[in-house]
Amino acid sequence: MHEYRMAIIGFGNVGQGLAQILAERSELIRKEFGLGVRIVAVSDVKLGSIYQPQGFDPAVLLAYVGARGTLAEVPAKVRGWDSLRTIRETESDVVVELSPTDLKTGEPAVGHIRAALESGKHVLTTNKGPIALQYRALKKIAEAHGVEIGVEGTVMSGTPALRMGMEYLKGAGIVRIQGIINGTTNYILTRMQDGKPYIEALAEAQAKGYAEADPIGDVEGYDAAGKLVILANVLMDASIGLIDVEREGITGLMREDICEAEEGGDVWKLIAGLERKPDGVKARVRPERLPRSHPLASVRGATNAITYTTELLGDVTLIGPGAGRLETGYAILCDLLAIDRRKV
Amino acid sequence: MHEYRMAIIGFGNVGQGLAQILAERSELIRKEFGLGVRIVAVSDVKLGSIYQPQGFDPAVLLAYVGARGTLAEVPAKVRGWDSLRTIRETESDVVVELSPTDLKTGEPAVGHIRAALESGKHVLTTNKGPIALQYRALKKIAEAHGVEIGVEGTVMSGTPALRMGMEYLKGAGIVRIQGIINGTTNYILTRMQDGKPYIEALAEAQAKGYAEADPIGDVEGYDAAGKLVILANVLMDASIGLIDVEREGITGLMREDICEAEEGGDVWKLIAGLERKPDGVKARVRPERLPRSHPLASVRGATNAITYTTELLGDVTLIGPGAGRLETGYAILCDLLAIDRRKV
Repeated sequence: MHEYRMAIIGFGNVGQGLAQILAERSELIRKEFGLGVRIVAVSDVKLGSIYQPQGFDPAVLLAYVGARGTLAEVPAKVRGWDSLRTIRETESDVVVELSPTDLKTGEPAVGHIRAALESGKHVLTTNKGPIALQYRALKKIAEAHGVEIGVEGTVMSGTPALRMGMEYLKGAGIVRIQGIINGTTNYILTRMQDGKPYIEALAEAQAKGYAEADPIGDVEGYDAAGKLVILANVLMDASIGLIDVEREGITGLMREDICEAEEGGDVWKLIAGLERKPDGVKARVRPERLPRSHPLASVRGATNAITYTTELLGDVTLIGPGAGRLETGYAILCDLLAIDRRKV
Repeated sequence: MHEYRMAIIGFGNVGQGLAQILAERSELIRKEFGLGVRIVAVSDVKLGSIYQPQGFDPAVLLAYVGARGTLAEVPAKVRGWDSLRTIRETESDVVVELSPTDLKTGEPAVGHIRAALESGKHVLTTNKGPIALQYRALKKIAEAHGVEIGVEGTVMSGTPALRMGMEYLKGAGIVRIQGIINGTTNYILTRMQDGKPYIEALAEAQAKGYAEADPIGDVEGYDAAGKLVILANVLMDASIGLIDVEREGITGLMREDICEAEEGGDVWKLIAGLERKPDGVKARVRPERLPRSHPLASVRGATNAITYTTELLGDVTLIGPGAGRLETGYAILCDLLAIDRRKV
């Protein structure tokens, strides 16, 4: 049995989802995988910052956040440390980085992750920004300090798309990846397929919490491009950036295009694609018209999916959730299980 | 870098597929995963038996089998040891069990696996019979001897359905499994959907090598039932046998049923299902009529697929090959990678 002392940076939806999973399933995880987790610190710019070496009951943390909207009143040994001090000075083995994502600078997450790795702590994150921008550099720092960086939740939330790719498909020779990796646009396209105009479908996606008030990051394909860069660098040993992704969103798609495809038995999907070429990996996000027999054609609503084309296995497709509080929180646990497995 | 000394029992399609993968991809696997494999022995009732501590070049083994139809002429230190002697007396760390499968007794594979585990050797197998019949007992022997038993290739060939389930979905709470895990029947049903009568579709499946001369194991659901038992015992901690599977094949399905479903926008599939109930796991193989929006509805031809319903992630579906020489050979490598990962 290994017990990990965990410091959580950022306690929004995903952090709280992780705490809920730990509150409800610790016994099961201990029994099934011989893995224990003790949350020793939480630092959140809005909710406050607490540290206690013997650990917090995750249910108690959630109760305070729910009832008081703050962590400041949770009984704790230390209060008020900022994120970097929490990362560096708490007695912890694992830092979970969940600060708000930024696809332009990657900050403050890049600084957090760097500090944690340089302190010899594993990092688990679901934060796209720092990984899309700095994966190779951060990975090198991790290797230099003998620790690991887990990024499962940056693509398809807790659906083990990256772990399956790294551990089990890479050996089969991945030559192409095609994915529906943005749930918001897939939801919008599905509703348009059901007959709604774009503007109504977008409003629905916003009402359901899939799309943000400013939907540009989703509908113009920036979110998918960020995830595609991660897939390329993690699974195809590429070293590309956002600038290398040819990108086209869904705003140019008309309802008539979708109806016409429908009549021909086809569907439009926003496809994020990677292809291994002699001169490197080619990356492209754009709407594609797929025949209904394509494994990605039947992926509806906010669901995500990736088809890996491999030399030995041909096509392998994974379909699952791409977002959600518990779904993304679970990705952190997937990464910790993978790290722990290496220690047995 | 770890190098494993491998003894292969049974050198038919899958064994030769594995040898081909090792011949073509050893460098890549060594570089990517730090894993080396040396085939030190092969024992096959038809092709002969050879042993050489410093190992064989897998390409040479394949060349002899291809050109001479035998291993007897391969330069080797020792010849003619039977399977049990090869398992027990060769200096090997890993025994790959690929003898012909038998869903009634599991022999001779059960004896082979037992002997290997008791000799302190890891066992990797794609052989359904012994695992459907004796998984729990064999797993116990493995644990008692500090070795592992890898069974990835018994379900969906090298598509990592069992590893993904064990390592990444079990922690999310698997409550239900639904799969298309017999490629032959899915091929037949797909062709019937395309308008062929059963008898023609079956003949096509036989011509393509999917179905055997006596197709009963496939079309009556025995093969799917065996795999379902493996899924239940490996992924749902059940302890069921073939007798516990409610089983109905596809021979009762008429072309009219399929046309009628087609008109209603539905498809018939042979679904292998497991459900966690208060009194244990319920297992059933039977044709089911699925709406076209179901993730398994668009799985065509000999392709396989499994949908795992989990408490934390909802539905996660994996689609990939279910058979094939390289595809199944690759499963052995998946298992070895998993075992090796635990040793780092």
